[in-house]
Amino acid sequence: MTSFLDLPSDTLFPLENLPYGVVRKNGVARPAVRIGDGVLDLRAVEAAGLLDGALGGERPFQTPTLNAFMALGQPVWTAVRKVLQALLSGEDARLKDDAALREQALYPIEGVEVLLPVEIGDYTDFYSSREHATNVGTMFRGAENALMPNWTHLPVGYHGRASSIVASGHDVVRPHGQRKAPDADAPTFGPSKRLDFELEMGFFIGPGNPLGVPVPIEEAEHHIFGLALVNDWSARDIQAWEYVPLGPFLGKNFLTTVSPWIVPFEALEPFRVAAPAQQPEPLPYLRQSGLGAFDIRLEVSIQTPQMAEPFTICQSNTRHLYWTMAQQLAHHTVNGCNLRAGDLLASGTISGPTPDSYGSLLELAWKGEKPISLPSGETRAFLEDGDRLTLEAFAEKDGLRIGFGACTGVVQPARPYDAAP
Amino acid sequence: MTSFLDLPSDTLFPLENLPYGVVRKNGVARPAVRIGDGVLDLRAVEAAGLLDGALGGERPFQTPTLNAFMALGQPVWTAVRKVLQALLSGEDARLKDDAALREQALYPIEGVEVLLPVEIGDYTDFYSSREHATNVGTMFRGAENALMPNWTHLPVGYHGRASSIVASGHDVVRPHGQRKAPDADAPTFGPSKRLDFELEMGFFIGPGNPLGVPVPIEEAEHHIFGLALVNDWSARDIQAWEYVPLGPFLGKNFLTTVSPWIVPFEALEPFRVAAPAQQPEPLPYLRQSGLGAFDIRLEVSIQTPQMAEPFTICQSNTRHLYWTMAQQLAHHTVNGCNLRAGDLLASGTISGPTPDSYGSLLELAWKGEKPISLPSGETRAFLEDGDRLTLEAFAEKDGLRIGFGACTGVVQPARPYDAAP
Repeated sequence: MTSFLDLPSDTLFPLENLPYGVVRKNGVARPAVRIGDGVLDLRAVEAAGLLDGALGGERPFQTPTLNAFMALGQPVWTAVRKVLQALLSGEDARLKDDAALREQALYPIEGVEVLLPVEIGDYTDFYSSREHATNVGTMFRGAENALMPNWTHLPVGYHGRASSIVASGHDVVRPHGQRKAPDADAPTFGPSKRLDFELEMGFFIGPGNPLGVPVPIEEAEHHIFGLALVNDWSARDIQAWEYVPLGPFLGKNFLTTVSPWIVPFEALEPFRVAAPAQQPEPLPYLRQSGLGAFDIRLEVSIQTPQMAEPFTICQSNTRHLYWTMAQQLAHHTVNGCNLRAGDLLASGTISGPTPDSYGSLLELAWKGEKPISLPSGETRAFLEDGDRLTLEAFAEKDGLRIGFGACTGVVQPARPYDAAP
Repeated sequence: MTSFLDLPSDTLFPLENLPYGVVRKNGVARPAVRIGDGVLDLRAVEAAGLLDGALGGERPFQTPTLNAFMALGQPVWTAVRKVLQALLSGEDARLKDDAALREQALYPIEGVEVLLPVEIGDYTDFYSSREHATNVGTMFRGAENALMPNWTHLPVGYHGRASSIVASGHDVVRPHGQRKAPDADAPTFGPSKRLDFELEMGFFIGPGNPLGVPVPIEEAEHHIFGLALVNDWSARDIQAWEYVPLGPFLGKNFLTTVSPWIVPFEALEPFRVAAPAQQPEPLPYLRQSGLGAFDIRLEVSIQTPQMAEPFTICQSNTRHLYWTMAQQLAHHTVNGCNLRAGDLLASGTISGPTPDSYGSLLELAWKGEKPISLPSGETRAFLEDGDRLTLEAFAEKDGLRIGFGACTGVVQPARPYDAAP
């Protein structure tokens, strides 16, 4: 597909992508799709009546988030996407030939503020990478007990914090908390000394299911609106001391960063691949037919204050995930738990089979024992103040490239805490 | 204080209580306070201008939840409460002498629908009863390892699910899930066989704190709007199989029930008592001065289909809680995690020191080993289909009684699940 717009030839945001986001212009938050280095303002396009047929009378884009659109469901998403592609290709001339509307609705991404596009009701984080679970288990329990007995039977997950989810670009302030050295008698209080990232892929829900009504696995993908990168910032020292027996809490909930452009699930169809073989075979409610995984390349880079440019420290791929998104969703709802439009489900750290594909510093520097070397001559066991950490992702096949945009954050020093001893 | 209304002499909802809720009348959700067996419609009172001074121009009661009011903060809550008490006592005659307004704003509780009064952004569940943590630890790890090493140093907590929180009266449908017998090779799938309740007290947040800015413990109580009972329904078999290492998930998130009248924090001032002595002394950020606990009596009753009336199976008290609400709140925010108006923090199961004060069937029937006997001749190790379970609470001192209203639910059989083997 080609656009009447002058898109860069190597853009990660061609007509086949059209990720959804929300930008602020003239003080108003506006749903938009990204196209090349620009955005198409859906508030304006909808107001001009160009989506009337596809939306069937609904006006979701006059609101400041994507939730209302997410609630409309897959047939509407597909219909809107088709119209947007036709408008941006010029096949439907109503945008191309309307100079006033083009002026109003199309503008460069540079200079507009990109917002968190969704009001996230609930956020769930899974633990779906076998390599990650094995690495962490090996560090803390030894290689022979690395995977817990439940791990191969169900997608382990837990509830995260929705209030502290932010869009890419938000600083991560080093959190205070309790931590206890293994040989210490009592915990101490202070800024985390083991600040880490986690490379994850998340998906946003729409329309979701009523309370009490599970989503069968063969329908699960109908409730996936689109995907975004997630950095589940983690304070490993706080987490290690607090997490038994009820799971991670303050070690995680100080901040979670998402990439603000949500790639439509439909745009990823060309990149389906088989998920890893599952042994033992899961229980029937988790058995998925067809290609349930996606070939999406992932990359993590770091740039310390001493470095002139970012340096790649991890290359991974969503195809490594043992549990698929459909399995996560079917499991989450099997007890009747309701998912709502705008809810976020994330994969957990996505580590691959090789040490350069591990999705956290905990694994890359192996619990601090093997700090990684940077081109500046520095080393890193965990993140230090001033470090800029960036997640990126794209899918590529037969010359088509679909990008996710960056998910980035700079580490800021801990703020003074008066009650600190 | 006496009201110009004809309140029952033994009411748990005197002028000193005035809990906030939301009722539906004529199809419209309306914030209200409960008074005796009636409600005062705050939408109507606000529209009549009677709260103008107290609210300083804000109009939070024209919305369908209490969130906007919760966001206004303690000085406004106190001012509104004073006006409402003056109006209902007759000291301020603007309601008493206005027959049209009385007709419009005062009506019996009977026949109106009582709704979940808050849009809960995030729900956090703590584990603050030492007796409960000790009981559960003893069952699963033995008496010598009952309490985890972190337990006496911090209020252990985890994130719960906000979407499946409902108001009292909602049925609890027995959830499906995976469970594995200790001696089995693999898990099986089916309806939970170990459905349980948990007796908890929750508190709602207002106004909350910005991301990155902790609430010091001496300010923590300023962010407590009010309290409500919470039943954290639990499927023990699902929970036991899934919860290591990331904590409870599907064993809990199928339903959580709250009592729909939120007792103002201010109404509980007369019932302050000293919290249990804490040994070791907590870190400075958790040190609270003054009386941090509350003497609120708790009661759980069950009524099976064979029983003509409910039977009390547990009597406990919030004063048993080791960690106070202020400590929970200060801990939750110490890493910069933001709490928002309407968030719910719950205590965890409140068990007392004696076997008849244990706040769950897991403890009352000791992991199924000692089923409890009911007057009908039946026994219960866990909940069975048709059982009605009710939590109730009130505080009493010097003739003053402040009640919470019931938090109740009836167990419904599991729905057919097509994918079940």
